[in-house]
Amino acid sequence: MKKLALAAAIAASIAFPAAAQKEAKETFTSPNEIVDKAPAKDWVTIAESDLLVMDLAPDRDGKARRVVIQLMPAPFSQGWIGNIRKLAAAKWWDGTSVNRVQDNYVVQWGDATEKKALPDGLKVMEEREYEVVKPTKMMKSKIARFFDWGENHEAGTIFSQYKAGSVVLHGGSYSFLNLFEQGFPISMQLEQHFKQSSAPVHCYGMVGVGRGYSPDTGSGAELYTVIGHAPRHLDRNIALVGRVIEGIEHLSSLPRGTGPLGFYEKAEQRVPITSVRIQSRMPTDKPLPSYEYLSTESEAFARYADARANRRDPFFIKPAGGADICNIPVPVRRKK
Amino acid sequence: MKKLALAAAIAASIAFPAAAQKEAKETFTSPNEIVDKAPAKDWVTIAESDLLVMDLAPDRDGKARRVVIQLMPAPFSQGWIGNIRKLAAAKWWDGTSVNRVQDNYVVQWGDATEKKALPDGLKVMEEREYEVVKPTKMMKSKIARFFDWGENHEAGTIFSQYKAGSVVLHGGSYSFLNLFEQGFPISMQLEQHFKQSSAPVHCYGMVGVGRGYSPDTGSGAELYTVIGHAPRHLDRNIALVGRVIEGIEHLSSLPRGTGPLGFYEKAEQRVPITSVRIQSRMPTDKPLPSYEYLSTESEAFARYADARANRRDPFFIKPAGGADICNIPVPVRRKK
Repeated sequence: MKKLALAAAIAASIAFPAAAQKEAKETFTSPNEIVDKAPAKDWVTIAESDLLVMDLAPDRDGKARRVVIQLMPAPFSQGWIGNIRKLAAAKWWDGTSVNRVQDNYVVQWGDATEKKALPDGLKVMEEREYEVVKPTKMMKSKIARFFDWGENHEAGTIFSQYKAGSVVLHGGSYSFLNLFEQGFPISMQLEQHFKQSSAPVHCYGMVGVGRGYSPDTGSGAELYTVIGHAPRHLDRNIALVGRVIEGIEHLSSLPRGTGPLGFYEKAEQRVPITSVRIQSRMPTDKPLPSYEYLSTESEAFARYADARANRRDPFFIKPAGGADICNIPVPVRRKK
Repeated sequence: MKKLALAAAIAASIAFPAAAQKEAKETFTSPNEIVDKAPAKDWVTIAESDLLVMDLAPDRDGKARRVVIQLMPAPFSQGWIGNIRKLAAAKWWDGTSVNRVQDNYVVQWGDATEKKALPDGLKVMEEREYEVVKPTKMMKSKIARFFDWGENHEAGTIFSQYKAGSVVLHGGSYSFLNLFEQGFPISMQLEQHFKQSSAPVHCYGMVGVGRGYSPDTGSGAELYTVIGHAPRHLDRNIALVGRVIEGIEHLSSLPRGTGPLGFYEKAEQRVPITSVRIQSRMPTDKPLPSYEYLSTESEAFARYADARANRRDPFFIKPAGGADICNIPVPVRRKK
């Protein structure tokens, strides 16, 4: 009987089992509970015009595969995002395919033939657009808080909350400060002459623009998403345009490509893309889900981030005292 | 013609394409080139007695699926590893299954029925075994170097190399120092009274011991591997016993479970495990591959880690200046 009970407990999980959360004392609130209890006002609706809906051909069992991507808000990567809107409007991706699946790295899709003409009017975007540079005076209060921080920082306390601002994380292994803005993970670097440069972070599920060696060669027609440990070396070297908010399993569970860089070696291994559209331009005969994210400027998000960094669920015996920005995924859900 | 060239360049890759590495100047050596050129003496053979070989039932196309795990060296987790050796010797896993696949988190395997009796003689391991605590005097020179470090540290330079020691990474978002020991990623915390505590790190592909709420309930019969961004909150809360060195794609590309925590909801979705053995105890009629890893104490590894943190391949325009410990996977290969 002892063995049976033991096995049952083990099977229950290695981490944050739902049952445990129910048993937890109310003062020891788990990250998921904080999200579930967040007030309606802390949720932000994602505009249908910012949803890129990609349908893959059905799987071997005939099951539909839909991937929903939230495009990034201004001021980030808007040139590429404009191109993506044009490509979707031109139905450019219909008939293209997923061509590359590299384990612990990326899934990449676009035109495998390399011959499909791009629509007219796409912008050529340059490398300076990978970052957004602003005078620090726009962020004066936040910057002040960074410096206020010195002591905790040294002691390894890695985030702080602004009463009316974002949750900020120390830059981890980087000379950057990590924070969340408008629902996205951002790294910020303080530069000389009172400037700061911000760029999105390559967390799991983020979507970026493939390019060649020259930084201005990415149009937005070739896209990828991260399916492994955050490849932060790509930050500021490539444009990020959004993140997968639903259906990433249709990409992350694809067979790995066996060619160099995880490209599929045979044409029949590629996964056909049947359609990519902006949701607001899709036919309205079938109602489509609407999505919302937990405002990264909200009190609830700050508490959620704190709980991710300092796990108090009964399973945990030693809270980490910190969390990588990519271990604090922004909660996104379907609206009821 | 311009479009064609553009598309070709894009398709070549988003990052570190093989072609680019060949074109790179010799002074700008890529991580892969450093590994390829490392002298034979820098490679360490993995003992066959430290290889745990797991065979899943063939896939839908009849293709074999073998996963090879390297067990951790002493002093880490040896109690659980002893249990794992006993379980393999008893053929305990034969007929069990992969039961849980949670996207961006873990794949977990063991006895789904929760009724299979464990072999006699398994040790009950306690939570203090999650860490290895030693007097710091054993690490005197290394500790000195940590403190020598102050300035670079502040400036965001995150690793340093010991002439006759390990590559060390600053603890990222944690109050830990990260380093490599005997081929594994380790986090080290300086404690009071001249003590240090070390524990393995939950990087992609690391293998750990599932447990219930009580920290001593993990025998080693229920195992999992990381298939997403490193869940560092599990460090020091659960035992790590090794890492997948070959065949992780057979686990990471499995369909995600749709039940709570990614458990499969139907018995027929589980992936049967046909056999788990220690390689040195496997029949010798078919020759099995032998493996080696790049010594984490070698000069070549230090240069590889530096190149991962400061990408100089032609693709990159802004080197990160640092790398998360989980973004410096220890090179492992089949011996020729």
